[in-house]
Amino acid sequence: MDAIVALCKRRGFIYQASEIYGGLNGFWDYGPLGTLLKRNLREAWWQDVVMLPCWGRPGPDGKPVSILPVDTRIIQHPKVWEASGHVAGFNDPMVDCRLTKQRYRYDHVQVFVPASGDAGDKPLFAYISDQPSEAKQRKKAEKAHGPLSSVLLSSLPQPWARVIAPDADAPGSLTEPRQFNLMFHSFVGATASESDKVYLRPETAQGIFAQAKNVWDTNRVRVPFGIAQAGTSFRNEVTPRNYTFRSREFEQMEVEFFVVPPEHLEGDEPATSSPLDWYRFWRDWRMEWWKSVGLGSDNLQLREHDKDELAHYSQATSDIEYRFPFSAPGFGELEGVAYRGSFDLTQHQKHSGTKLEFRDTARGQTLPNGSRRGVAYVPHVIEPSAGLDRGVLAILCEAYTRDESRPSPELMKFHPRLAPIKAAVFPLIEKDGMPEVALRLHAELSRRFARLGLIETDAKQSIGKRYARMDEAGCPFCFTVDGDTLTAQTVTVRDRDSGAQQRVHLDAVPAFLSDKLGL
Amino acid sequence: MDAIVALCKRRGFIYQASEIYGGLNGFWDYGPLGTLLKRNLREAWWQDVVMLPCWGRPGPDGKPVSILPVDTRIIQHPKVWEASGHVAGFNDPMVDCRLTKQRYRYDHVQVFVPASGDAGDKPLFAYISDQPSEAKQRKKAEKAHGPLSSVLLSSLPQPWARVIAPDADAPGSLTEPRQFNLMFHSFVGATASESDKVYLRPETAQGIFAQAKNVWDTNRVRVPFGIAQAGTSFRNEVTPRNYTFRSREFEQMEVEFFVVPPEHLEGDEPATSSPLDWYRFWRDWRMEWWKSVGLGSDNLQLREHDKDELAHYSQATSDIEYRFPFSAPGFGELEGVAYRGSFDLTQHQKHSGTKLEFRDTARGQTLPNGSRRGVAYVPHVIEPSAGLDRGVLAILCEAYTRDESRPSPELMKFHPRLAPIKAAVFPLIEKDGMPEVALRLHAELSRRFARLGLIETDAKQSIGKRYARMDEAGCPFCFTVDGDTLTAQTVTVRDRDSGAQQRVHLDAVPAFLSDKLGL
Repeated sequence: MDAIVALCKRRGFIYQASEIYGGLNGFWDYGPLGTLLKRNLREAWWQDVVMLPCWGRPGPDGKPVSILPVDTRIIQHPKVWEASGHVAGFNDPMVDCRLTKQRYRYDHVQVFVPASGDAGDKPLFAYISDQPSEAKQRKKAEKAHGPLSSVLLSSLPQPWARVIAPDADAPGSLTEPRQFNLMFHSFVGATASESDKVYLRPETAQGIFAQAKNVWDTNRVRVPFGIAQAGTSFRNEVTPRNYTFRSREFEQMEVEFFVVPPEHLEGDEPATSSPLDWYRFWRDWRMEWWKSVGLGSDNLQLREHDKDELAHYSQATSDIEYRFPFSAPGFGELEGVAYRGSFDLTQHQKHSGTKLEFRDTARGQTLPNGSRRGVAYVPHVIEPSAGLDRGVLAILCEAYTRDESRPSPELMKFHPRLAPIKAAVFPLIEKDGMPEVALRLHAELSRRFARLGLIETDAKQSIGKRYARMDEAGCPFCFTVDGDTLTAQTVTVRDRDSGAQQRVHLDAVPAFLSDKLGL
Repeated sequence: MDAIVALCKRRGFIYQASEIYGGLNGFWDYGPLGTLLKRNLREAWWQDVVMLPCWGRPGPDGKPVSILPVDTRIIQHPKVWEASGHVAGFNDPMVDCRLTKQRYRYDHVQVFVPASGDAGDKPLFAYISDQPSEAKQRKKAEKAHGPLSSVLLSSLPQPWARVIAPDADAPGSLTEPRQFNLMFHSFVGATASESDKVYLRPETAQGIFAQAKNVWDTNRVRVPFGIAQAGTSFRNEVTPRNYTFRSREFEQMEVEFFVVPPEHLEGDEPATSSPLDWYRFWRDWRMEWWKSVGLGSDNLQLREHDKDELAHYSQATSDIEYRFPFSAPGFGELEGVAYRGSFDLTQHQKHSGTKLEFRDTARGQTLPNGSRRGVAYVPHVIEPSAGLDRGVLAILCEAYTRDESRPSPELMKFHPRLAPIKAAVFPLIEKDGMPEVALRLHAELSRRFARLGLIETDAKQSIGKRYARMDEAGCPFCFTVDGDTLTAQTVTVRDRDSGAQQRVHLDAVPAFLSDKLGL
């Protein structure tokens, strides 16, 4: 992971936020290449989910999948978060250290105990896995206990009189666990009083639910259909960690897909119109989608939740997970796909006093004129909810390749659709008319492809070093103007992943690139 | 304006945020059509500013304009806002009413006085222009004073013992003006103590400045070049007003364009490389750009700031302004273009202790080997800073057209590049094979154009009503399958703005649309 982080900094993918001021824990900025990579992943989602949903593939009912977008605010009325359950229940249990004033996620604190099982009345050393405290405390614990084992703090009886907290120098300083709400709060208007308290959204989903009625009242839609939104969310994580994986400010891409509740399905519907059919459809397509943008290896997995893992309102939930270097052999979540029943809309209906029923005019009793009487219901919901920054991180990890057989061993194997730099044009040497031809080709490719990504050119250093620079940035194709170009009107095109070169006629370069970029 | 607001609600362009909870003052959500319109405007900026800067047009120095993007966080280290001057100086003066607990922008409070000039010892009635208080107070003031004139509250001597505040029922309740900081604040981490206080960015610009050194250290750039960013900002406006114009959460599109300070320009440079040349270049091109996306009328104007209006660090600033229905005959700002000297980078250099000098290897003394010694300097900055939501609002106002000669008089004349719906396909009647042909054409156009915008189809109601629906949504082209389609393989295409129809061969429809959309 260190090599990936170093490359990301060196090539301008990711910087610490406010780095010149020492950074801010849990906040990351994207440099030029990272901004383009993140944008390309967001655009791929937008194109494939909103503009031409599911690649134009029909849903389980055989009809085109229908999705409309919204763009709702980060700050909403605080009652939105009361209805959603976030004010009361979006908590992490925390323990404080009275000595160091540090605060820890209760479920992250571990304690070294003697492998023998009996510590007598010796102190026990607490630590956080993967943090500097682990090695430090391990040393001290080994000195006190010999061979070590480790347990969760929560398995020890309270009060923890013998436990020395990470970075503390005396035992007994850890408090009992307390609940800590993960929503950032602020105040709207000029007085910072409780009545003006608002929250920064911890998810984009609730903005969709709160506007669902407006969307179906002002657009010609018919259930099943979805509402999609991409945007920034905030969670005041107590222990942000694992690079950008657990950040305090992050971007989500969410769909709330509304389906007919099972009790309103009619005898003549296709046998594949039930909420669980739609759940399976979205789950499987989302998995395919992540593969299509470059996560094709067995580092990607689909994990169906066990019955006892499901929220009380959910009949089925699955996570699409990626095996990150820092989580291996475990996995980290990229996207959750959940069948949430009518829970969210019912909650908002209750808290707002506004009926959130969809009037479905294609159902209900058949009238003498052949039309239907219509029925009203609170739709059920399938929610595919993806993390954009986590997606970018997975793409970076998957693309990072070290190949010691190459002169410069590091390369980023981005899918051409996501690559920030689409192509580079080099003159082999800076004379004999090569720079002029390279400049002309660069201008031509820029004109045709610049809206998709950067088209680079570079005449400095050896050609090997220039290829290496492009490999690190994940540029899939380098075109080089050489001696033969001037006589035979051909250039070499070098494939990033294999390093192999072939010759292409100068006039055929745009068509070659167009084809490779899938246009 | 009321008609525009009503259409925006009815057709799903703009909704009140959290509307089912009574809304939240100063926050607006975008419905499906508004989301697409806003996105299309953001994309137009991104394409024309970041991907192919200034449409590929050379800068005043004759070379291509070079821009790289960044994506920085809403929450940054609080010292960023100390350096930028926002903690100390981003204030509005406010007065409170002790009776009603309402708060007003000091410079917005006006007072009715007798036209004769002498009020004796009668009470004076304060009001806020365009607010309900104006009419109410006017009535009372007329009763007390007869013919009225009006002055700013600030022109009256304090204390304002005789002034009756808006909505108050006794005089003398207004406090002295106090400064109120417009930044939203929050707290990072588990303790809400002063040391954990952070701010929601009031502009995206400072994220660019704070990362400028990282960008030029990790990318091959040479001054002049720019860094661009689009993203959400927050301002805790005390009196949000004029629909989305003065919102508390809004999106900006900003460029910081770094240029060589005048003292480092050399004798052999083109005579057009000075900061003021670049300032004029950006100012004029940005004006052209707004015209290109549909603001072509004389409702758009460029206003150069007078010398006494300039910030102390600025030698030149101009505003690109639009005459909104609510501001007419006045104008409201869409974008500011400012020559800010080295003010911002110098401030961050001072507060962070990090040198923010660019090392320019193309300048300085010529060495024996012909290369240059290089010089280091803090670049000067030209900042074109645009408001996305304000742009959308201007586009909505400019597009809104009432033509009483049409059966349905309201239409939105969006530029095809910005129109959320790019085309619609209708069968004239729902029989004789027309629906089948329409469906096939709709599928074909969707496949080819759906990534750009919605392609609609609709078979219900009279053809006139269907055209009217598309006019309101600003769909530029409607294709109708009729009796002749079945015999002559042609469809009608109806132009939104003129209502005129022509016939096009079925096979030529994609090429026709492609051409009209400028592809």
